[in-house]
Amino acid sequence: MHRFVSAAGRAAGRVPASLRGPIVHKAGEIEKELRKGIKKPFTEVIKANIGDAHAMGQRPITFLRQVVALCTYPNLLDSPSFPEDAKKRARRILQGCGGNSLGAYTASQGINCIREDVASYIERRDGGVPADPDNIYLTTGASDGITSILKILVSGGGKSRTGVMIPIPQYPLYSAVISELDAIQVNYYLDEENCWSLDVNELRRSLNEAKAYCNPKVLCIINPGNPTGQVQSRKCIEDVIHFAWEEKLFLLADEVYQDNVYSEGCQFHSFKKVLYEMGPEYSNNVELASFHSTSKGYMGECGYRGGYMEVLNLHPDIKGQLVKLLSVRLCPPVSGQAAMDIVVNPPVPGEESYSQFIKEKESVLNNLAKKAKLAEDMFNKVPGVHCNPLQGALYAFPRIFIPSKAIEEAKAHKMAPDMFYCMKLLEETGICVVPGSGFGQREGTYHFRMTILPQIDKLKILMEKMKDFHIKFLEKYA
Amino acid sequence: MHRFVSAAGRAAGRVPASLRGPIVHKAGEIEKELRKGIKKPFTEVIKANIGDAHAMGQRPITFLRQVVALCTYPNLLDSPSFPEDAKKRARRILQGCGGNSLGAYTASQGINCIREDVASYIERRDGGVPADPDNIYLTTGASDGITSILKILVSGGGKSRTGVMIPIPQYPLYSAVISELDAIQVNYYLDEENCWSLDVNELRRSLNEAKAYCNPKVLCIINPGNPTGQVQSRKCIEDVIHFAWEEKLFLLADEVYQDNVYSEGCQFHSFKKVLYEMGPEYSNNVELASFHSTSKGYMGECGYRGGYMEVLNLHPDIKGQLVKLLSVRLCPPVSGQAAMDIVVNPPVPGEESYSQFIKEKESVLNNLAKKAKLAEDMFNKVPGVHCNPLQGALYAFPRIFIPSKAIEEAKAHKMAPDMFYCMKLLEETGICVVPGSGFGQREGTYHFRMTILPQIDKLKILMEKMKDFHIKFLEKYA
Repeated sequence: MHRFVSAAGRAAGRVPASLRGPIVHKAGEIEKELRKGIKKPFTEVIKANIGDAHAMGQRPITFLRQVVALCTYPNLLDSPSFPEDAKKRARRILQGCGGNSLGAYTASQGINCIREDVASYIERRDGGVPADPDNIYLTTGASDGITSILKILVSGGGKSRTGVMIPIPQYPLYSAVISELDAIQVNYYLDEENCWSLDVNELRRSLNEAKAYCNPKVLCIINPGNPTGQVQSRKCIEDVIHFAWEEKLFLLADEVYQDNVYSEGCQFHSFKKVLYEMGPEYSNNVELASFHSTSKGYMGECGYRGGYMEVLNLHPDIKGQLVKLLSVRLCPPVSGQAAMDIVVNPPVPGEESYSQFIKEKESVLNNLAKKAKLAEDMFNKVPGVHCNPLQGALYAFPRIFIPSKAIEEAKAHKMAPDMFYCMKLLEETGICVVPGSGFGQREGTYHFRMTILPQIDKLKILMEKMKDFHIKFLEKYA
Repeated sequence: MHRFVSAAGRAAGRVPASLRGPIVHKAGEIEKELRKGIKKPFTEVIKANIGDAHAMGQRPITFLRQVVALCTYPNLLDSPSFPEDAKKRARRILQGCGGNSLGAYTASQGINCIREDVASYIERRDGGVPADPDNIYLTTGASDGITSILKILVSGGGKSRTGVMIPIPQYPLYSAVISELDAIQVNYYLDEENCWSLDVNELRRSLNEAKAYCNPKVLCIINPGNPTGQVQSRKCIEDVIHFAWEEKLFLLADEVYQDNVYSEGCQFHSFKKVLYEMGPEYSNNVELASFHSTSKGYMGECGYRGGYMEVLNLHPDIKGQLVKLLSVRLCPPVSGQAAMDIVVNPPVPGEESYSQFIKEKESVLNNLAKKAKLAEDMFNKVPGVHCNPLQGALYAFPRIFIPSKAIEEAKAHKMAPDMFYCMKLLEETGICVVPGSGFGQREGTYHFRMTILPQIDKLKILMEKMKDFHIKFLEKYA
């Protein structure tokens, strides 16, 4: 029964197979072979392909899990082994749930008291800039928020098809959703020579070219960058906001790595905060949606699929449509909403769990900072590899030199040269990383993305292996 | 900044506002007024609009919550207050998780061992008909599975646009997703005179008419029915399968109410089972996707957004596309996957938690059966109301007579007559139900959907109130 082959929907046919594509498939096969006892030059596959902290051995934040466990099984509220501050939060979350149960549907926009906590968090983070719980939408991870808002903004056909500007390199959710929605992907390139910074002249070039074939309406920014790890300066954010204001673009600020900033002199500035500080002409006019998640930061709770989106200057009609759209899927997972609450409402000084919480949080972040530096330094010692500083996020995105003989062989295998490189790396070392072609890169340049999540000793060994592999690769294809 | 009004996406503009539409909005407003102390003819709003068991006071199944709590906070595995059978399941689920944590991403298709448990469950349920874990996809509630499979199947433009056949009355997720995907909704009518049964002649009529303007490829069945509560006979399922085979239609079987069967002589038969029993010509050819969920049944865990989909005879290319599509959203919420595991792998005789589990399960189902009968009987005692037996699911969907004067007044308010009726009901009694126009109904007939989830004493009072309201309504508009 082959008749549905031709019926493949708009969506699936064009989904880029990067983060979970052929490399990950191959990694799975190799793992099966290892389990069967087949000999390899390595004993385990190291999955440095995806920002999945717990899978790489990071421990959950105790307080977060205590609160979610209390919400899950409220009998535990009587247990002396749980701290009072965790119980207090659990009781508050349960009071916000129908029938005091995580098993009830919530409002499509999310539980009221959690949206209030998100708003307070944003106000604290942004030095008092006001945040309105009505503008907060809890989501099923950040991906869901990004997808939903793009669904509302995308329209038109032919030359009036909506253009969505995204950075190159980008996180492939963007290209996938843009393709799924039949919108037009408009690329702007980050400047690798300048530490992957964003240049407004490049935004302008990209926009002006795009106007010839579509209707560019949305500008997506990822800060700190994924896969590129840069942290945008305040000045750069101002420039982007001014540009969006001038060109009447809707800004999507993907800020899921806001807690992951490592380089000295770098600091996270939210688009929302800078927008307000630029004055009412901007803060009353520029449309903005920003995103956060439970999956990254120091908590790494990917599996909970928790997240939120804050919108600003969204027209009430559009807001109404957004609520309707969200209501079809009923509500985001409630335990994910609870997890999000703890991210924005963690223990404070004076509370019983504060010291343990801070210890756990700082331990994760300090380790990540060390590993960011380690990865940069070690990559830059390898001939034919150049790696920008990992100012933030969870990834190294080094540029690799691939000899022309290897490029030819890749072509013979109908593979992108960096896919060929990463496949060889996987087969010879067990290290699984994602080729740059999955994220987009300037023609003729090659990269891969590697997470810095492996534990530090493992990361060192992994990088030594990569170095040896690379040198051998250069020799082989010299 | 109004420029995005015209840019409203395909999706949102056409989302039908039923389950969470104006009635629910009004209910929220009334609740606020009550809290402010504004006097009403009632003291609380009773939300009988949505199948949200916990919100109506149903208690979670203890065993399910124990396992999820253990998975959430594995320190509890050392606690003597949790039973061994719960710990055993929690350990097994955690072993299936990256880093033994609910916080890691899982495979996009869901955790392997849970998909194995789902397959075993299906085999037991279907008297030994084989089920393959590779054909099981864990989902974010059933809605997510239905949406995903429709995304893959829908394609084409103009006369070749995909037609999706759905029952009328239907669950409005279907119309919303069909509209969102720019597919064509092809209605077939359930037979109210015959207890909402499905007649293959009506399927044929509907299909033949649709062929003139689209390419009908998918046939959706909801069994037990939502909002109509009928349970399909085995014979009827056979007829539908034969029809799908003959017409080469892809079958979507929404079976989320499979545990909710109340009427004597009624029994749930899965499409999968009947398909196999009809022999290899059918079981090797008819394409089928069936859906289940943690949200309904006896557990009512809506907030976890857990579910699964089983596919059969899906072409490998389509399967590949499905996996790619799912991978963009990374994975279903992992605590929802864990909850789904307990639904398909509950305590068995001889295990410590068995007796409590069975007691809780049967108490919920017996109560629902009583309430199903009560609702049917009480509605049928009201003049101008007719209610078919509630053979299954969680809803009464009575037909109501609306006098022509009331219809005129509704029109003057630009409201559907049953929306007008339900608004009045809400304003005068605090009872929130959903008008039949949100689900679809034959021209000139009027209905509403009411859940049977309120506790039995409350349901009795509620139905007395409805009766009084209806009689007064008839008098007023006589």
